[in-house]
Amino acid sequence: MRIVIDAMSGDNAPLETVKGAVEAATVFPEVKIVLTGNRRVIERVASEQRLSLSNIEIIEAASVITMQDEPNCVVKDKKDSSMAVGLLELKNNADAFVSAGNTGALQVGSTLLIRAIKGIRRPCLASILPFPEPVMLVDCGANVNVVPEYLVTWADMASIYMRKLFGMKRPKVGLLNNGVEEHKGTEVEIETYKLLREDSAVNFIGNVEACDIPFAPCDILVTDGFTGNIVLKYSEGFGKFFFRTLKGMYSQNNRSRLSFLAMKGQIMDLKRQFDASEYGGAPLLGLSKPVIKAHGSSDAKAIRNAVKQAINFAKTGINDEIAEMTARRAAEKAAKKAAAKASDTENKEAVK
Amino acid sequence: MRIVIDAMSGDNAPLETVKGAVEAATVFPEVKIVLTGNRRVIERVASEQRLSLSNIEIIEAASVITMQDEPNCVVKDKKDSSMAVGLLELKNNADAFVSAGNTGALQVGSTLLIRAIKGIRRPCLASILPFPEPVMLVDCGANVNVVPEYLVTWADMASIYMRKLFGMKRPKVGLLNNGVEEHKGTEVEIETYKLLREDSAVNFIGNVEACDIPFAPCDILVTDGFTGNIVLKYSEGFGKFFFRTLKGMYSQNNRSRLSFLAMKGQIMDLKRQFDASEYGGAPLLGLSKPVIKAHGSSDAKAIRNAVKQAINFAKTGINDEIAEMTARRAAEKAAKKAAAKASDTENKEAVK
Repeated sequence: MRIVIDAMSGDNAPLETVKGAVEAATVFPEVKIVLTGNRRVIERVASEQRLSLSNIEIIEAASVITMQDEPNCVVKDKKDSSMAVGLLELKNNADAFVSAGNTGALQVGSTLLIRAIKGIRRPCLASILPFPEPVMLVDCGANVNVVPEYLVTWADMASIYMRKLFGMKRPKVGLLNNGVEEHKGTEVEIETYKLLREDSAVNFIGNVEACDIPFAPCDILVTDGFTGNIVLKYSEGFGKFFFRTLKGMYSQNNRSRLSFLAMKGQIMDLKRQFDASEYGGAPLLGLSKPVIKAHGSSDAKAIRNAVKQAINFAKTGINDEIAEMTARRAAEKAAKKAAAKASDTENKEAVK
Repeated sequence: MRIVIDAMSGDNAPLETVKGAVEAATVFPEVKIVLTGNRRVIERVASEQRLSLSNIEIIEAASVITMQDEPNCVVKDKKDSSMAVGLLELKNNADAFVSAGNTGALQVGSTLLIRAIKGIRRPCLASILPFPEPVMLVDCGANVNVVPEYLVTWADMASIYMRKLFGMKRPKVGLLNNGVEEHKGTEVEIETYKLLREDSAVNFIGNVEACDIPFAPCDILVTDGFTGNIVLKYSEGFGKFFFRTLKGMYSQNNRSRLSFLAMKGQIMDLKRQFDASEYGGAPLLGLSKPVIKAHGSSDAKAIRNAVKQAINFAKTGINDEIAEMTARRAAEKAAKKAAAKASDTENKEAVK
């Protein structure tokens, strides 16, 4: 198995990406780790950190996509970037790709360079919201303009992912909405509700209100990419605010500083639990090969976890099952159409 | 001034609403407080609590709208509810109305029974997100289906509200979006961005990402009612999760319980800061008379604060300024149209 890592993208690249890659190569010796990026820079970082690159392959890439770059630069003026070169390597000769870079560029590049699974119109970005009981949020921002059918497909794919990778038997799917009643939301939510209720492939539990998200109302929360992006980013902001507030509270005076020492263990546990990188990165679901978006601020551990996730994604046959699901759907649709046509012809014959 | 309070709606009604009303009557002796609800029940509660109702008027209302009732029941089979009777009293003979009841019913009832200000097509619900620097969120759920013009009007009205009631000179307006760049979002956000940039009545600072909400990126955050509802409810859920987690941390063992004693003051301060009722309730902006939605779980203090807010809303001339703003807008629009027509006629003449 060959796993490609974008060595140059992310807030802490290339230092942490290279460290993470070397750790992954040690932990998963059966896997070939491939780095894309500036060979000279990668080798200098490795030498400074006394890291051996002996098991790691490097593919030269001259440029880097920054957070300020337009998403479509990945297929235009930054075709020579570590991300574009990585995606091309994935397409031609690898099993999964990990990048901590520009999310928009990764989405555009993945969609244009890596084929979608047959029958999937829009791949989606799936993130884990790091509450005590993790909730997978789809779509987190890949698709701002949606139709109900997209949301249903994302629910189907996320259900397969959670079964295969988290060992859940029948992951509970909720539809994010502004109320629990089935008539709530815009036309998109109202129609999606109906379709999900009829979808035997998912364990649909109904609408979920945002106040319940931290308390594990479901395993998979489905929404459009605009709302999903708001929820994901608000979670991050709120988490940051939470810990900043705790820090402020504990540094007010000597008594509170002493109190911190008593609580340090619990606070660190909590921080670890809130650390999304424990779950790896956010997979793009619906592509013919796994692409994992690692968090922009990924450290070596986060990269190593994302690689682990990429390996599991590639070897558990998630994509095969998604392909089966879409084929089954297409067959059902065709059969329905044929039946409707037959009944139509019959009716016409009867009229004659 | 006459302020009407829905005595029977809310999780803690009628006990806390009656207590809050009596407190308000004491604090604001120049204001006539009017309660709508079951007179017998209200009088019994007052007598049990040894509260004097001597300065308070009661208007009989036979039924109560519950959280499970359909919103339009307020103008159909529950016309005799404390909410419907209160809205009618507001329409005919009062200056503001406070209710802790069913938000949907209050929106429907307000829109149908209380006239909108001339030129306002859709009133909106405005809530304060209780971070160290309060952020006013519009719309919080009154309008799920929107056009860009609605969002601009809400920004205008919220700016007037924050100037008049919070004493802000030029409240900063942000547009909630999935990125800071101006091309971000759906068609609604892209068009709203353009309109807000051209709107000299608001201090538009551009797009705001959800991760920045807790850190006071703006004074007013504009979004559609679907997304606004998600953000408002997620804030509530996250706040609850935050304090529940702290409680769990501090009750783990004797050492942590001792540590809590040292930190109790800070934690209580924080809880107070997070208590949205400090700011009163959520005003419906754009109605010809003020309607304040108090939180469903309001206690007496929250009701008293909502009454204070209602008094200030009524007496600071917010609605007069909103009416002036819409009149100015209409005049500008008419002038533009006339100019376009004149230039069109001129062109036609020239062609002849």
